[in-house]
Amino acid sequence: MGRKTRVASWLEQTSDDFETRFSAFLSTKREVSEDVNAVVKAIIDDVRARGDAALIDYSARFDGVDLAKTGIRISEDEVDAAFAETDPAVIDALKFAAERIEKHHARQMPKDDIYEDAIGVGLGSRWTAIEAVGLYVPGGTASYPSSVLMNAMPAKVAGVPRLVMVVPAGGGKINPAVLAAARIAGVTEIYRVGGAQAVAALAYGTETIAPVAKIVGPGNAYVAAAKRQVFGTVGIDMIAGPSEVLVIADRENDPDWIAADLLAQAEHDAGAQSILMTDDAEFGHAVEAAVERQLKTLSRSQIASASWRDFGAVILVENFDKALPLANRIAAEHLELAVADPEALLPGITNAGAIFIGRHTPEVIGDYVGGSNHVLPTARSARFSSGLGVLDFVKRSSILRLGPDQLRKLAPAAITLAKSEGLDGHARSVSIRLNETALENGD
Amino acid sequence: MGRKTRVASWLEQTSDDFETRFSAFLSTKREVSEDVNAVVKAIIDDVRARGDAALIDYSARFDGVDLAKTGIRISEDEVDAAFAETDPAVIDALKFAAERIEKHHARQMPKDDIYEDAIGVGLGSRWTAIEAVGLYVPGGTASYPSSVLMNAMPAKVAGVPRLVMVVPAGGGKINPAVLAAARIAGVTEIYRVGGAQAVAALAYGTETIAPVAKIVGPGNAYVAAAKRQVFGTVGIDMIAGPSEVLVIADRENDPDWIAADLLAQAEHDAGAQSILMTDDAEFGHAVEAAVERQLKTLSRSQIASASWRDFGAVILVENFDKALPLANRIAAEHLELAVADPEALLPGITNAGAIFIGRHTPEVIGDYVGGSNHVLPTARSARFSSGLGVLDFVKRSSILRLGPDQLRKLAPAAITLAKSEGLDGHARSVSIRLNETALENGD
Repeated sequence: MGRKTRVASWLEQTSDDFETRFSAFLSTKREVSEDVNAVVKAIIDDVRARGDAALIDYSARFDGVDLAKTGIRISEDEVDAAFAETDPAVIDALKFAAERIEKHHARQMPKDDIYEDAIGVGLGSRWTAIEAVGLYVPGGTASYPSSVLMNAMPAKVAGVPRLVMVVPAGGGKINPAVLAAARIAGVTEIYRVGGAQAVAALAYGTETIAPVAKIVGPGNAYVAAAKRQVFGTVGIDMIAGPSEVLVIADRENDPDWIAADLLAQAEHDAGAQSILMTDDAEFGHAVEAAVERQLKTLSRSQIASASWRDFGAVILVENFDKALPLANRIAAEHLELAVADPEALLPGITNAGAIFIGRHTPEVIGDYVGGSNHVLPTARSARFSSGLGVLDFVKRSSILRLGPDQLRKLAPAAITLAKSEGLDGHARSVSIRLNETALENGD
Repeated sequence: MGRKTRVASWLEQTSDDFETRFSAFLSTKREVSEDVNAVVKAIIDDVRARGDAALIDYSARFDGVDLAKTGIRISEDEVDAAFAETDPAVIDALKFAAERIEKHHARQMPKDDIYEDAIGVGLGSRWTAIEAVGLYVPGGTASYPSSVLMNAMPAKVAGVPRLVMVVPAGGGKINPAVLAAARIAGVTEIYRVGGAQAVAALAYGTETIAPVAKIVGPGNAYVAAAKRQVFGTVGIDMIAGPSEVLVIADRENDPDWIAADLLAQAEHDAGAQSILMTDDAEFGHAVEAAVERQLKTLSRSQIASASWRDFGAVILVENFDKALPLANRIAAEHLELAVADPEALLPGITNAGAIFIGRHTPEVIGDYVGGSNHVLPTARSARFSSGLGVLDFVKRSSILRLGPDQLRKLAPAAITLAKSEGLDGHARSVSIRLNETALENGD
């Protein structure tokens, strides 16, 4: 770690070329999109055609595991064993996190709204849980028990009766804490299969795995491509990109605290992005120096260095009011407000996945035990989407109920519009019910 | 119309091969998916590179209109003229519909939920409107003013400040009622451009059209492919397929009423699907005969015949309790309950876009003036998604706020989980704030 690791961009709002540089910064791509569509399509077709046999073949080839021997489904005994193998302190922490997540998400459950309007028309929204949800969990180092909780708990709170987890068993191994988290979160079935083949099995079903109606959870390029391809047959969540944090901080912060937050983001992935926005150049330099210092003692320093060197940014703003429009354009997945009066900034923030208020709310708390969800919109998609929540696991049926009187009142406008759109059959479906005799005898 | 138009499928629940036939029926594809991805990609790239100039070229080629002469934006004067040109009865009906849609959708507006939990952690969900939404309106015969209302009103209710409509001007013409509906719905900008080029302009912007954050509205295969390709850069709504209705009806119905409802669906599109589910074979035959009879006097009888002949179905069920699991598997966009006690069936229905209750609630009322939305999930996607509504035009930021005391309480579990996941930087971002002196001096 001899060499200096400088931040990728240093932007100053008062400089003449700021808008040009900021626009360029916004449009920086942080991931190479591999075109794996053809390979993925072949895998999906094969799983549809051959079912379990295809899963067994791909798992042997990609994961080095013989599912014919181990079974595709992970047994309750195996989960028991994984639970016993997991550090009790980790079990306790997972339970603590799960309870907080459950309590918070329970407040998100939408309520049915069935009512009669002024003329007696029955209207409403009725919410029901999705009947079966698949949860993809990556293998290897990205196999995070905290993500199992974050993806599964909202489904559980929503009342999803069948919650099916798939996780690849690279070399036969699955992180025991992931299985423990699945049990704590109430996952109902677990299969040791991953990749595009697991997504295909969830969407179309095999002899062993019954199909689900929606698939959520992060994965590599193959998993993401497979989710896009099966979308329509099943629902999917958003396709997650590399993670990012925007920290808005004044000079009153300890530079080391802010540097630690930037590095917590950067250590995720070389494509992650950490941005500091401050009104004080000297503080910005102090944070940059703290980042360099802290990088030396970070176990994932190589990843974090790459992220900071390639995508990190310090943006020097004129003042925090002028920072907000920039923050809204960045639309960060995570936004920390480490300033003297964070609540004053809040009303001006329109685009952010999650907002962490004040100097004692590091984003990391939200990753684990805050209670809110850590599956959040990345790469500026907070402009149009929300973090994962209970609403992602329910759907709404609208309700309409008319009697003869209500029909008589609404019919004329409906018939006028139907005829103006050239849809005679639509007009007839209403007018045929206006026959007085029929109406008198109607229910 | 000499030849008989028979329903495509007649299925009986008590027959031995029912499950096989019903499964096959469920997996019938009703649209040919044209692969237009390469063409669409080239158009999008061209609009990104050349902006307005590309829009002008494509509109000349595909729509036969010279935008260099007419301008890309439709002026207020043109909308005034369209408004004046539209039948006043249609204007009144649109206003009547808009008011009902607005009132119903206002109830869908989610409320912020900011609270403190038992240990004083500030948590919450904060909703904000999407800053700019694009609304695609098809040209030609599918240019429906009712769809303009259904797509635009929820955005307006959500508080979207910029609501941008695009509509192709085939041969220079745009349906004046569509422009009138746009004004009634509060659309803020209208551009005479369609196809993949319009989607590209909305997603990336041109000299004349500023980019939006989300694009909604139906379109042809090119529009659908373009929406898929720009997804991620902007949000999109679901990709709509051909429409369908499932009518559950007992023998007490007038067969002509039910036939009219089935044909109202069938006249939309040769790929539309109308399904009757009844417990009475004789009634089923009576409806089939009524469909044949009514087809003779329908202006769009060719389309409706094709739909009924290719995709129509009568499903004879043992009883209505046994009908519900089938209805849930069909997961119809529109579900009519034309039975003696429809409310008794309601609790058993889990998958349906919209439910129309009782003999006097034809689906067509929902198309125009019911108040609920007519943009609904097709092709079984009601298993995992909902109709369009206010929630599609807002997004949620989660909020987290800790003070030193709360951080001390949540820190141990967070640090345990971070370390167990091998994320030292995460652990440090929390532990660095546990320095007692720093905490005492904290906010």
